Amino acid sequence: MSHEAIAFAPRASVEQVEESTDFAPKFDERGLITAVTTDATSGELLMQGYMNAEALAQTIRTGEAHYYSRSRKTLWRKGATSGLTQEVKELLIDDDQDCIWLRVDVAGGASCHVGYRSCFYRSIPLRTKAQQIALNFTDTEKVFDPRDVYGDAPNPTVL
Amino acid sequence: MSHEAIAFAPRASVEQVEESTDFAPKFDERGLITAVTTDATSGELLMQGYMNAEALAQTIRTGEAHYYSRSRKTLWRKGATSGLTQEVKELLIDDDQDCIWLRVDVAGGASCHVGYRSCFYRSIPLRTKAQQIALNFTDTEKVFDPRDVYGDAPNPTVL
Repeated sequence: MSHEAIAFAPRASVEQVEESTDFAPKFDERGLITAVTTDATSGELLMQGYMNAEALAQTIRTGEAHYYSRSRKTLWRKGATSGLTQEVKELLIDDDQDCIWLRVDVAGGASCHVGYRSCFYRSIPLRTKAQQIALNFTDTEKVFDPRDVYGDAPNPTVL
Repeated sequence: MSHEAIAFAPRASVEQVEESTDFAPKFDERGLITAVTTDATSGELLMQGYMNAEALAQTIRTGEAHYYSRSRKTLWRKGATSGLTQEVKELLIDDDQDCIWLRVDVAGGASCHVGYRSCFYRSIPLRTKAQQIALNFTDTEKVFDPRDVYGDAPNPTVL
């Protein structure tokens, strides 16, 4: 399978970026673009990550989700360690082309390194006047035990 | 309505951030946290934006989506100009607490300043070997004409 670099279009005008078929993604000063991943069937938000140009190209070439790991500073084929790969059913880009939306099927049914289906397993109460706010767990059942899957690998969460 | 500041918990440990009910969001060096907004009914991804601490607090206090506008450098009550407000049905946070998910109902049915329902109205072809890639419009019908809604206001898209 060829992974040749993709020739992104130069960003020439607002009209071109918003209204044309030119593929002109905007990478930030770190060389990254925001990626948002939802379950193609349920619509559930699974995770939010980042891609560099290589991760974006690999995702397009292979149809498997690739990201850039900021904690490990490297290209990251999702599921390389855990087996929880993501098959991309549809890939979209937003109006100003600084965000990628992946609609995926997840092997194993989980996307979160903590063990939950989705990374978004806690909700924030709304319309409260409280100063101190406690989160609510919306999902309490882990799909897997992270110790079994990742062993002693460092946790990617940065404080 | 009171908009008192919220006392976010200090980020003390990975376990606390991932596994507890402590609300300890991580704002980046710009003071911003990523926000992802989906349609509460259809699950469609509508937009991706940013919040500062004030926008997050206002969203929690009022149940109406507030963001931080990077182009205008100001708190942004979504729909203040366009009338396309977003009523938040559910607000969630991810494992490492650096991303907020808003599940919303949109007044007027559109979220995108270009006039489409969603900001994600173009798809990227998958499993192609092409070097130059053309986007496909997945939505071709605008809900509104941006000139009618925004008049001469500057376009927020930055090249």
